[in-house]
Amino acid sequence: MPVRSSNSKILSLIRETPPDDIIFNLICGTTDISRIEGISAAGSNPEITLLTPTLDSEIISEGRCISMPIPPMTPEGIPTPALISRAALTSLGVSTVIVDAGFREMPKVPFLHSGIGTSGNPSRETALPEYRIAFETGRYIGRTLGSRYDLVALGESIPGGTTTSYLTLRSLGMDLPTSSSLPSDPGNMKEELWKRVQNRVNPDSLSLQQKIMEFGDYTQAMALGMMESLKDTPVILFGGTQMATIFRISDMMGQNVEKYLSTTSWVYSHRKETIDALVQDPERLIISEMTFGGSKHKGLRMYDLGHVREGAGMGGSFMLASLKTGNDQAIYSEIDRLYGSFM
Amino acid sequence: MPVRSSNSKILSLIRETPPDDIIFNLICGTTDISRIEGISAAGSNPEITLLTPTLDSEIISEGRCISMPIPPMTPEGIPTPALISRAALTSLGVSTVIVDAGFREMPKVPFLHSGIGTSGNPSRETALPEYRIAFETGRYIGRTLGSRYDLVALGESIPGGTTTSYLTLRSLGMDLPTSSSLPSDPGNMKEELWKRVQNRVNPDSLSLQQKIMEFGDYTQAMALGMMESLKDTPVILFGGTQMATIFRISDMMGQNVEKYLSTTSWVYSHRKETIDALVQDPERLIISEMTFGGSKHKGLRMYDLGHVREGAGMGGSFMLASLKTGNDQAIYSEIDRLYGSFM
Repeated sequence: MPVRSSNSKILSLIRETPPDDIIFNLICGTTDISRIEGISAAGSNPEITLLTPTLDSEIISEGRCISMPIPPMTPEGIPTPALISRAALTSLGVSTVIVDAGFREMPKVPFLHSGIGTSGNPSRETALPEYRIAFETGRYIGRTLGSRYDLVALGESIPGGTTTSYLTLRSLGMDLPTSSSLPSDPGNMKEELWKRVQNRVNPDSLSLQQKIMEFGDYTQAMALGMMESLKDTPVILFGGTQMATIFRISDMMGQNVEKYLSTTSWVYSHRKETIDALVQDPERLIISEMTFGGSKHKGLRMYDLGHVREGAGMGGSFMLASLKTGNDQAIYSEIDRLYGSFM
Repeated sequence: MPVRSSNSKILSLIRETPPDDIIFNLICGTTDISRIEGISAAGSNPEITLLTPTLDSEIISEGRCISMPIPPMTPEGIPTPALISRAALTSLGVSTVIVDAGFREMPKVPFLHSGIGTSGNPSRETALPEYRIAFETGRYIGRTLGSRYDLVALGESIPGGTTTSYLTLRSLGMDLPTSSSLPSDPGNMKEELWKRVQNRVNPDSLSLQQKIMEFGDYTQAMALGMMESLKDTPVILFGGTQMATIFRISDMMGQNVEKYLSTTSWVYSHRKETIDALVQDPERLIISEMTFGGSKHKGLRMYDLGHVREGAGMGGSFMLASLKTGNDQAIYSEIDRLYGSFM
């Protein structure tokens, strides 16, 4: 089975919900943390990672890059998982909306503008000085848009996001390794950063909100705000340890939302303990068993070797397409075709 | 009766639709035409009219100006009708969404970003080089957002909009005076401009779309795009001769949408013939009989003397509040209170 869950009810719900009653929100942000060498593979060099959410948005919305001639790549030349999400979602008829949780450059496709800006580097400054505005904007978007649908999917595009998640979890007293877009997680760098962060501010006396504000990123604040106003609508978080961190914080906030995490087997085999510890209830977990072993493109086959693993809602988008079409071969063909169109 | 229509069914529908199933979209744009001296009173001087939609958005969304310390004013110091819309909509529970049909400056509240830019001056250049993108963006917004509601209201904030409407109508062979935010309509200037526009391009050989593209503004393209995807959802255009122009073009395009125009008696008494000619069917018309005669603020009492007349969905917002609360005195009190908070 390409899609696994111990909860057959949620799989049935997804199968039975008409595609046009489902909305996929790509929550896009940037953090100064991704500019540190070696932290993120979501871009061919650290500075250019700040543009990745802009290009991911264009790929998800239009199936092409507008702001630059080429898609975001890892330093090894493996293209962004947004390509895979786009291919999987194409022709399903699911609505997609791009949410600005801190673009550095505005994408050239329609999106929900917040103007919230790049999250700061918490070793130097409060990461989210505008936490409250981001959370309230999320609440507004959830109420005005998300709550009008039967099923809401939330994905992310924020290079450096597994590092901000790591820092947030540490501040919450959880020493859990997050995943990474790099084949070898830069765990030591994350730990080093956490030490420097603690030199600036001691987390012990801070509230939950203050910890996100000091150490997190705006995609967290925006996603939590959205879930705050989705009391009657099931939410599926599409992503890996970043979205699992948001899942956990939502629980800690006491948010009364029916929520699930849909991720790839690449993340789950890399960070099973972390995902299990954050999601806690296996009934809330959906795993996409994806393989690009049969792809004609080397860049896709590299995913099977532990590159990228997740991002831009890749695992959840594949899950949706697989459950709703039952035709994985057609999804893989479309991924190959779209990938080819970018090369 | 403060709200008049020969169609009691639409009034009942509005009364009976729960407020949170209604969405009000403020479609915001700018045109280089408003920079011509004497064309628009939607700003204390011509250049500053380009900021009016930005500030109107902030007033509608948050009840205050963020990007500048004071609200948009006419040269006589009469504040923007966005104040009145905001006061009327406050506490109704209607969702409001700001749509970018060409902001000059980005407002500091959440909005749907298109980045389409200022519409050109048609005496010098094609007004809407990106007509197709604006229309498609409108279609996307209508489908993703509007169609999820039971009733969609569309208002506008675009200084110079009665002039672009005049030019558009002329190109369509209709010599109808549009209204104006000025007490005395600068009809001669509009007519002069039309002569200059014709020197640049002859409308005779152009299609309907090409005429909007050459002579119109992006709020028209965006509103028409939105209506294109609202086949099963009634739409109420909140506005005067500008929205009536869009109403007429929608008919000419053969759009299959159930639509109404809600305007003020100030516009209707000023330009009855134009409104009747554009809307054609009296069953599609709703008139708000507003009066600020009892206001303690001179700036509001000036509305009764033919200043401003309409804009930012003022007439329709009053109509909604009046029908849904039945308490006009409370609406007028809230308008007075909010107005006072800006002075």
